[in-house]
Amino acid sequence: MKAVQVTKAGGPFEIVERDIPSPKAGEVLIKVQACGVCHSDMFVKEGAFPGMEFPRVPGHEVIGLVEKVGEGVDLWGKGQRVGVGWHGGHCHQCTPCRKGDFINCQNAKITGISFDGGYAEYMVAPQEAVALVPDELDAMEAAPLLCAGITTYNALRNSGAKAGDVVAVQGIGGLGHLAIQFANKMGFKTVAISTSDSKKELAKELGASVYVNVSSEDPVEALQALGGASVILATVPKGDAITPLIDGLGVDGKIVVVGAGTEAIEVSPMQLIMGRKSISGWPSGHAKDSEDTLNFSALTGAKAMIETYPLEKAEEAYNQMMENKARFRVVLKIA
Amino acid sequence: MKAVQVTKAGGPFEIVERDIPSPKAGEVLIKVQACGVCHSDMFVKEGAFPGMEFPRVPGHEVIGLVEKVGEGVDLWGKGQRVGVGWHGGHCHQCTPCRKGDFINCQNAKITGISFDGGYAEYMVAPQEAVALVPDELDAMEAAPLLCAGITTYNALRNSGAKAGDVVAVQGIGGLGHLAIQFANKMGFKTVAISTSDSKKELAKELGASVYVNVSSEDPVEALQALGGASVILATVPKGDAITPLIDGLGVDGKIVVVGAGTEAIEVSPMQLIMGRKSISGWPSGHAKDSEDTLNFSALTGAKAMIETYPLEKAEEAYNQMMENKARFRVVLKIA
Amino acid sequence: MKAVQVTKAGGPFEIVERDIPSPKAGEVLIKVQACGVCHSDMFVKEGAFPGMEFPRVPGHEVIGLVEKVGEGVDLWGKGQRVGVGWHGGHCHQCTPCRKGDFINCQNAKITGISFDGGYAEYMVAPQEAVALVPDELDAMEAAPLLCAGITTYNALRNSGAKAGDVVAVQGIGGLGHLAIQFANKMGFKTVAISTSDSKKELAKELGASVYVNVSSEDPVEALQALGGASVILATVPKGDAITPLIDGLGVDGKIVVVGAGTEAIEVSPMQLIMGRKSISGWPSGHAKDSEDTLNFSALTGAKAMIETYPLEKAEEAYNQMMENKARFRVVLKIA
Amino acid sequence: MKAVQVTKAGGPFEIVERDIPSPKAGEVLIKVQACGVCHSDMFVKEGAFPGMEFPRVPGHEVIGLVEKVGEGVDLWGKGQRVGVGWHGGHCHQCTPCRKGDFINCQNAKITGISFDGGYAEYMVAPQEAVALVPDELDAMEAAPLLCAGITTYNALRNSGAKAGDVVAVQGIGGLGHLAIQFANKMGFKTVAISTSDSKKELAKELGASVYVNVSSEDPVEALQALGGASVILATVPKGDAITPLIDGLGVDGKIVVVGAGTEAIEVSPMQLIMGRKSISGWPSGHAKDSEDTLNFSALTGAKAMIETYPLEKAEEAYNQMMENKARFRVVLKIA
Repeated sequence: MKAVQVTKAGGPFEIVERDIPSPKAGEVLIKVQACGVCHSDMFVKEGAFPGMEFPRVPGHEVIGLVEKVGEGVDLWGKGQRVGVGWHGGHCHQCTPCRKGDFINCQNAKITGISFDGGYAEYMVAPQEAVALVPDELDAMEAAPLLCAGITTYNALRNSGAKAGDVVAVQGIGGLGHLAIQFANKMGFKTVAISTSDSKKELAKELGASVYVNVSSEDPVEALQALGGASVILATVPKGDAITPLIDGLGVDGKIVVVGAGTEAIEVSPMQLIMGRKSISGWPSGHAKDSEDTLNFSALTGAKAMIETYPLEKAEEAYNQMMENKARFRVVLKIA
Repeated sequence: MKAVQVTKAGGPFEIVERDIPSPKAGEVLIKVQACGVCHSDMFVKEGAFPGMEFPRVPGHEVIGLVEKVGEGVDLWGKGQRVGVGWHGGHCHQCTPCRKGDFINCQNAKITGISFDGGYAEYMVAPQEAVALVPDELDAMEAAPLLCAGITTYNALRNSGAKAGDVVAVQGIGGLGHLAIQFANKMGFKTVAISTSDSKKELAKELGASVYVNVSSEDPVEALQALGGASVILATVPKGDAITPLIDGLGVDGKIVVVGAGTEAIEVSPMQLIMGRKSISGWPSGHAKDSEDTLNFSALTGAKAMIETYPLEKAEEAYNQMMENKARFRVVLKIA
Repeated sequence: MKAVQVTKAGGPFEIVERDIPSPKAGEVLIKVQACGVCHSDMFVKEGAFPGMEFPRVPGHEVIGLVEKVGEGVDLWGKGQRVGVGWHGGHCHQCTPCRKGDFINCQNAKITGISFDGGYAEYMVAPQEAVALVPDELDAMEAAPLLCAGITTYNALRNSGAKAGDVVAVQGIGGLGHLAIQFANKMGFKTVAISTSDSKKELAKELGASVYVNVSSEDPVEALQALGGASVILATVPKGDAITPLIDGLGVDGKIVVVGAGTEAIEVSPMQLIMGRKSISGWPSGHAKDSEDTLNFSALTGAKAMIETYPLEKAEEAYNQMMENKARFRVVLKIA
Repeated sequence: MKAVQVTKAGGPFEIVERDIPSPKAGEVLIKVQACGVCHSDMFVKEGAFPGMEFPRVPGHEVIGLVEKVGEGVDLWGKGQRVGVGWHGGHCHQCTPCRKGDFINCQNAKITGISFDGGYAEYMVAPQEAVALVPDELDAMEAAPLLCAGITTYNALRNSGAKAGDVVAVQGIGGLGHLAIQFANKMGFKTVAISTSDSKKELAKELGASVYVNVSSEDPVEALQALGGASVILATVPKGDAITPLIDGLGVDGKIVVVGAGTEAIEVSPMQLIMGRKSISGWPSGHAKDSEDTLNFSALTGAKAMIETYPLEKAEEAYNQMMENKARFRVVLKIA
């Protein structure tokens, strides 16, 4: 089979021929149809993920068909269309797992980082990392739902915001363009926050009621004019982009951060106390959350806008994404 | 001014000429434009409400323009378009009021029962019972949102159901046809439960994904085929219609009852324990909730389907509603 | 090893000599020290549990020492003191399990019913059913925490009641005498509801602030005099004992039913709507919940009052419990 | 009557003779028995509160007897023992008020800042700012519950922590010594975090299970050794004291900040996402919350440790508090 691998930090994507892997006990072999290209693939390309081993095949937005299952796998069978996302499996034995909180598993595996991912014609995944894909969805459009989609859908549905509330989405990129659709389909009064006017029309089409360009208007004023935001979903996890939004929250409002930034947000006790505000984070979700995301997409028609590349052009696809040129997700068409 | 009043239990609606009332301190005089006819108007017509005094002008789904305000009213001013719903004011002094839980005020007033309502060219309401109406809404279509609408919208947004969850609406009448729209606009997988097939097509148009006719199929089976309902909103508050639905709930599912029935629901401890289920009630909402309902309607386009009558034909309008002939709410056009 | 088994529905407890079982992959062999006798052991004694096979050793309130572990068990090791409760394992593959909601596993095993339990010198349990026991606790006193304790502790901590709220415990038996202690240690204003005055003094000692004897006073009046209950924990799951308590709830109050009764509770929509009340059920908990219960007992000193019997007198112990003579839990001392 | 007032920013406390004030409509005249001295009295002494007018009598931890009520006050009557805290009244007309969220009233009054407070033999308060004091409590010990008490009790009971959870209290001063007691009485595993060992023994007596001295041990390690904190209540609202605690949170853990600091807390998206953590603020409470606090104190015996001064020694009392010499609250004994 054909696969795209990285063999050292900073190395190129190499197209290689490999044997089709065999699923061990508890594993599922998937014939890959589509795999999204995500900003986090950088952890493989640049080798920045602690403990990762080379060579590694990246890719954690995978749609494909079950080809074969390992011993003890009852849930999955040949021919089912399934997906695999960022959360690549859990141990069932650590404290979070024993509580049923798989996403916080202390030994969690990450697809395309802990094991080879979806930049390949076949991949193997632990059974608990596999999600069923509803028939209604197109494989290419569905792939990004397994990371960009689940992260924003799951964060929004668990944010505590209620239908009719003001929900702002900061950043209109791969995550943001999905978040705007989800927020709209959940009945929120949706505000898109961006740094230019270039995506204004599109944001409205995706479901934003209000568009705020922070380069030309004060987001605090704009949000307070609406009564203050119940939730601001921050998809660009940079401290200095988030800090100025805090005072745009309404009473009981919360910033929900998705995306793994390390630059600090700054907030004073006073800002939090006045109006009982909070700042919190949300970390993706597990395979059942992926199914919920996919089903919500099938129910409401929310879907990723994508650019398509063949597996062989993974490098070009990756660069397009890294350079922020893609509108909005890049997906490898594999079968 | 013209008004429609009832002078004794079971008496007819009499059209009378009255003086335009004057707003006292804390009150607002409203020039009525539209007033919905609600099943609860029966409490006036049949005189069944404890402590109610005659003559009484019914009507608690009122849209109109502020004509004049009493002393100490800062929030409202002449010309604003406002609405008044079932919750007709609160005391600010009882225990629930001191907690900010106005809807459970021990001295709550009810519009059109504790004081004269909207079957009239003018009415007076306590300032805390008044809600602002967004410009986008048509007065006639908006009127039913102030009782049928707020009750279902408020129950649904506070039900704990999350976007994508299965939410069933039992009963497709005045409340149900709004609830289906709201549930759909909130991103729920919406199930309409009725007793015949006559409303099937319409329910789908209103946003139901699934239609269950309990005369020809088992609602428990139908709901369990979807994974079980997260919420069943029971708009027909009859025990023997609700009891058979309980086992259609999924894990953590809840029945939410709206509408004031007295016939008992029967449920065993076992039914509740398996899957942590619950049965609960939801009682309308206050003026701010009305505003939220109206704004949600303006945001999403959810609105009442109405039949229109002039004030003079209140009796005919009322009978149409009571005989379940209306599709779906009856509204008096007054100005 | 010695074990107590039942070989047919309604049959006696037979003391038999068996081989010490061997733990298979994923299993743990436990040398039993103490095993509580629970009302649910009746499902074995009377053979009323669907699909149960004979002979069967009952007992699901087990404390003992890990003797040996099967393949793939990393969490447990020889010498650890552990407990096993009602929840005897889950499948990791059904929908609730994939959500992390093990207690609602569609293939859940029950200790002492699906497999042999703790009326024996040794028993084997699936690793996910095993809980660590803190050193501070006495094995005999701790045993009942694994069913009577976890059920009430878990129901109370998840009830939504906040410190200072009025929480009533209906029934002062095996579950109730623990619930009163837990409620008190959680900072609730605790009300004990019983059918006679015989346990009044004791209930106060256990932490009840108020005692209500429903034979001589109206529980609705008594609870409303306190402002209404936030939670009524019903430990006697009989419909006709629970129905009369509903109106004793305060605003947002809820009945939480534990214990598997089948007799219906009756409640009208009106009762639920006025004050947004609810009736719900709570089903025990998993091994991590057991650990939380045991740790809470160690932290606060709440513990079961027990009567002790040797394994050989299981029949006598069981009868004592079934005839409601025990104050309050019966525990077999095994090693 | 005797009163202690401040006439300019930075000015001394002057003891003056004034007329006993008369309660206007909606107001209550209180004969003061005790008034706590709080760090926020600094806003009067230093004149730092925006819009405050001089002369002003400080004091917002007031216990006294109702002497006389103004027109329209039904809830209160002569002779009742009542308290007044920081929240000194609300407008009933702004958006938060219309939602019942009085504490976020946009026109909220503050006792001893917006109007004269309790450093006097008599004071007048709006009726909605008045709380009933249970008979069991000593006036002097109860006074600090109206600010230091309500803030910590209310923050803790609304924190989402469940009985048995690890709850840490940062700072063992006026707020902290109450918070430790409350946390313990709510059934939390309570951790006291301080900057020296000087309060270790006392903290244990107040109910702390674990004591962490950040000068000699890493609070992150200490908290993670307990499984991570569910809640860290930060009573010292300084950014650089709070920032280092964030990684001591467990999964779903939250920092809850009380106290009005302006120095920034710094937190990265990554810290919040891993384990779904959050940082939030909690702002005191209204009169009903005060009653809940007082009742909780009466129920559990949690109470302020105080030093007593006569009204005439207000300056000395204030300095004692400002210099952090008090153990732990300073209260003026007035009648």
